[in-house]
Amino acid sequence: MLLDRIERENDVKKLRAEELEELAAEIRQFLIEKISMTGGHLASNLGVVELTIAMHRVFQLPEDKMIWDVGHQSYTHKILTGRRAGFDDLRKYGGMSGFPKRKESACDAFDTGHSSTSISAGLGYVQARDLLGQDYSVLSVIGDGAMTGGMAYEALNNAARIKTNFIIILNDNEMSISENVGGMSDYLARLRTADIYTGLKKGVTNTLHRIPVAGDSIIEQIRRTKNSIKQLVVPGMLFEDMGITYLGPIPGHDIAMLCRALREAKKVEGPVLLHVLTQKGKGYEPAEQEPARFHGTGPFDIETGKPVGTKKKDTYTDVFSKVICDIGKRNPRVAVITAAMADGTGLSEFQRRFPKRFFDVGIAEGHAVTFAAGLAAGGMKPVFAVYSSFLQRGYDQIIHDVGLQNLPVVFAVDRAGLVGSDGETHQGIFDLSYLGSIPNMTVMSPKNRWELADMLRFAVDYEGPIALRYPRGTAYDGCEEFRSPIRYGKSEVIYEEESIAIVSVGHMFEEALKTRRLIKETGYNCSLVNARFVKPIDSEMIEELAKRHSLIVTIEENVLCGGFGEQVTEYVSAQGLPVKVLNLALPDDYIEHGSVDVLRREVLLDAPSMMKRIVTAYILACSKRAEKDI
Amino acid sequence: MLLDRIERENDVKKLRAEELEELAAEIRQFLIEKISMTGGHLASNLGVVELTIAMHRVFQLPEDKMIWDVGHQSYTHKILTGRRAGFDDLRKYGGMSGFPKRKESACDAFDTGHSSTSISAGLGYVQARDLLGQDYSVLSVIGDGAMTGGMAYEALNNAARIKTNFIIILNDNEMSISENVGGMSDYLARLRTADIYTGLKKGVTNTLHRIPVAGDSIIEQIRRTKNSIKQLVVPGMLFEDMGITYLGPIPGHDIAMLCRALREAKKVEGPVLLHVLTQKGKGYEPAEQEPARFHGTGPFDIETGKPVGTKKKDTYTDVFSKVICDIGKRNPRVAVITAAMADGTGLSEFQRRFPKRFFDVGIAEGHAVTFAAGLAAGGMKPVFAVYSSFLQRGYDQIIHDVGLQNLPVVFAVDRAGLVGSDGETHQGIFDLSYLGSIPNMTVMSPKNRWELADMLRFAVDYEGPIALRYPRGTAYDGCEEFRSPIRYGKSEVIYEEESIAIVSVGHMFEEALKTRRLIKETGYNCSLVNARFVKPIDSEMIEELAKRHSLIVTIEENVLCGGFGEQVTEYVSAQGLPVKVLNLALPDDYIEHGSVDVLRREVLLDAPSMMKRIVTAYILACSKRAEKDI
Repeated sequence: MLLDRIERENDVKKLRAEELEELAAEIRQFLIEKISMTGGHLASNLGVVELTIAMHRVFQLPEDKMIWDVGHQSYTHKILTGRRAGFDDLRKYGGMSGFPKRKESACDAFDTGHSSTSISAGLGYVQARDLLGQDYSVLSVIGDGAMTGGMAYEALNNAARIKTNFIIILNDNEMSISENVGGMSDYLARLRTADIYTGLKKGVTNTLHRIPVAGDSIIEQIRRTKNSIKQLVVPGMLFEDMGITYLGPIPGHDIAMLCRALREAKKVEGPVLLHVLTQKGKGYEPAEQEPARFHGTGPFDIETGKPVGTKKKDTYTDVFSKVICDIGKRNPRVAVITAAMADGTGLSEFQRRFPKRFFDVGIAEGHAVTFAAGLAAGGMKPVFAVYSSFLQRGYDQIIHDVGLQNLPVVFAVDRAGLVGSDGETHQGIFDLSYLGSIPNMTVMSPKNRWELADMLRFAVDYEGPIALRYPRGTAYDGCEEFRSPIRYGKSEVIYEEESIAIVSVGHMFEEALKTRRLIKETGYNCSLVNARFVKPIDSEMIEELAKRHSLIVTIEENVLCGGFGEQVTEYVSAQGLPVKVLNLALPDDYIEHGSVDVLRREVLLDAPSMMKRIVTAYILACSKRAEKDI
Repeated sequence: MLLDRIERENDVKKLRAEELEELAAEIRQFLIEKISMTGGHLASNLGVVELTIAMHRVFQLPEDKMIWDVGHQSYTHKILTGRRAGFDDLRKYGGMSGFPKRKESACDAFDTGHSSTSISAGLGYVQARDLLGQDYSVLSVIGDGAMTGGMAYEALNNAARIKTNFIIILNDNEMSISENVGGMSDYLARLRTADIYTGLKKGVTNTLHRIPVAGDSIIEQIRRTKNSIKQLVVPGMLFEDMGITYLGPIPGHDIAMLCRALREAKKVEGPVLLHVLTQKGKGYEPAEQEPARFHGTGPFDIETGKPVGTKKKDTYTDVFSKVICDIGKRNPRVAVITAAMADGTGLSEFQRRFPKRFFDVGIAEGHAVTFAAGLAAGGMKPVFAVYSSFLQRGYDQIIHDVGLQNLPVVFAVDRAGLVGSDGETHQGIFDLSYLGSIPNMTVMSPKNRWELADMLRFAVDYEGPIALRYPRGTAYDGCEEFRSPIRYGKSEVIYEEESIAIVSVGHMFEEALKTRRLIKETGYNCSLVNARFVKPIDSEMIEELAKRHSLIVTIEENVLCGGFGEQVTEYVSAQGLPVKVLNLALPDDYIEHGSVDVLRREVLLDAPSMMKRIVTAYILACSKRAEKDI
């Protein structure tokens, strides 16, 4: 196997050019086999096998800096930098990350995970290089989907003025995670089929064949061409207009062509955009057919492409999807918004049924929030469904455009709490803090599938900014018997005893139930309250609990700082209530990839750990109280 | 006076066309006189007098929606909608806001304050209008500076696909607050001087004269022109490439021309961008000469343009400016970044002295943060100087690109706390919360000018993400005698007594000193500690204070939720320390415009109010303790 000869970075340079196609085939085979077992990002990785090989042939690692936008397409890069063995534990706790990580390899120049950051980061490297008098290449690989993000444009706007080399590779597969949208997308579609450089009929790709690689010939020819009236029919004029040299389009699965184009790009003084056309899922029929489904996938059967394992129960996203459709049917003012995540957020069905009231804005969370505010100001009832960690991009807009005007926008915050194998960049562990500090905002979180439905209906009827947060994964379908109507700011008492009172936020309810059972087994009494509202907190409930309990325990899957627990502690302290508070929350740290169960054990938010922490705190609280009594 | 005939919206339509130029002159005179007394935004408002008159002539209020990006150019709009009398109390507490406010007038369609939101909000209105079967026009007025913000691009990308009318007015004055930067800026510069529409030699402006206004003639002619090969020399191709009809450039001080252009724009099916050339400061010589200085100005002498009043002491920004230059001289790895605020953040001098290490990225805070991360990864020591409320735009990037990789980026967070007359959108009252919840982040705040200098030097030497926050206005120059070296995570004890302990954050120190004096006058003892570090909190200090005090009081100019006080309360509660905590912070609300002194009284953070709150809490704490002792 050729792959066996790739033990570390730059080893790919030792292969003969004729062997590279076979190498690409081996890598594809390897990726399909491994990901079919572990799950992971498949389609995007299959799309850039040749591009990555070409990059590694032309550039030197770790000296040259390769920055992978979003980073879910970096698997071939990992294979070519000696991390093939890591794929056995891909995305598992303690195993290899599915994204680039500086701490994993010196060949990973910059950590990524969220979209549209690579040009900004690359530009930082370029300027540092020039200021420090160093000499290396910087390559930012960005998808056409990520180009819908405003940051990419902000960075392009800045890249335009540099005078030294900076290579931006536009990996154009005609889609982001799902289908791509907007003016830029239409523009790229026209570019793809454009006749390139008048007089060079077959385009730059042919030009690259025809003209000797030595010297500046191509670049100079392009410059000459452009300095005539003919520049006006050059494709990529939008980029050129911004001051960025455009090269392309280049067929993205032809390694020799890619190598030539990269060598040419390396010679450009100033920023150059290499437009590479790739196919998502390339080389694996099921992924070519359904690239969105094979974007991030669980284990699957290689023959059929079908997911392995039995059909699971509904996820929270599934429940959201059904209920929002029902709401949409009854209320014509309800419109929904996604930032390029129609499938992930469960809005595809709404899109099918109510296409006019469905808006996919592209990877543009900031715009999405203010657009929602505009819809609300215009009399609609917008629901923005978005992952918790991506909504961070709209933080200012929530404060400035929604909260300030007290506009009725509903935020359906999916993937809140620990998300598991995607790891640090995707954990939704800050939303209770960042939403909680915003005036006029209401924040809810459901304990189970029924409550998600009830809260969503409540939110749509509410006349102000309101968020409900729910996690990735299977929706808890227990405790259906507890389904009292949602009342603004009111929690729900599940079990009423004395001594210890647990107040749990949202989906931690399931773990809180188990924890209570364990506490009861140790012989202590324990009340259980479902918080329902994180902002405002139910102060009446806290007053009540303080009367008959020595210890109030809050449980939330969010960082401690600014979260639910601190609000409870603050209230108890300010009111001087005679009760001790224990806040169980996530530590002040990033939390890496791994299954949610493992991660919870690691951060001591699993039921056995919580039981021990609670009982210890309770005993301490009682002994202190006893001290005072003596 | 013609102005006397403008009592409410649409009254401007009653004037004869020949009178409009005189009206514009009267408005200019009025603005210069009023702002010379109250202070406010002058240059941007003088630039859009004619544009605003034309908009009010052609469109109907409040039915049609005018959205003013940033909003500091809405003064003429306020005059024409019956708010002329409001200028006597402009930006004063209880008086008229300097920005559009829905609660102030039905003619203000959307609140603004931060940059680049207007196209998103306008698009929301457009979609709501179409879905609800309504019929009104939507106009988003955006400056060329604001076009450097990624949100504007995200919104343009989405606007491209609508099929109904949406008017985007690009108010191009060749600058944002100071000089504009980047590829888009260069592009617009070329557009300004472009020969327009081949065959229509003198451009669309002449075309507008020559062709009868009735019917679709111009639009159709443009479309016809573009459908030929000649479309390739159409200026505005970048916008056209994105799917947006481009009309312009239009001379922005010719009311008749503007009215015609607006009527034409109204007829376009789909999004249309009207490129209007205006001059910032138009009609007032000193403002034309120095538009940046007259962007936001205090009271000034009309004759000379010079500020009224004696030269004030150094502001915190001045101190930052001096120290960062000194650091830059000694450390060649230090680079500074601003998001279009070189003057405001005090970086202009650094720019003059070290131009290669100065980066103005445009109004692009998200990019700025990740660019800084890239610089740091490349071996530089970046310092991003930015206003607290604008850094909200980079929240995700701080979490995702700086914090996660633990990169040594310094955030110089200016305008933190209450800023005064700019009001709700500009108050820097969330930063302790949003920065505090980010792992790996260190947050400091100086008590006076000397400490700002020391902390800045400390920050630049620190090997991780670090922020220091300081307010608008005069730097406190008292207490120079307290200048012990900054030690990581350590607070500074100023007065050590017993009973009550005040721990104050940053610039609230001055007010805390006064508060302590008032407390002492009532006969109580009171210690005073300068927190210095907000994250991490100095737990050792808290343990010490708990030993000899009954009450710990925290003082900060930040919202309570997630701020410094809650961290102290949380620590005291978790450790079970025998001390009561009182957190004095801002309420969970937006805080309007007014002088900082007035606002502090309003939120009970002035010394007399704080003294009362503290003494009351202390008496209560003692009586509770006494109860327990009995």
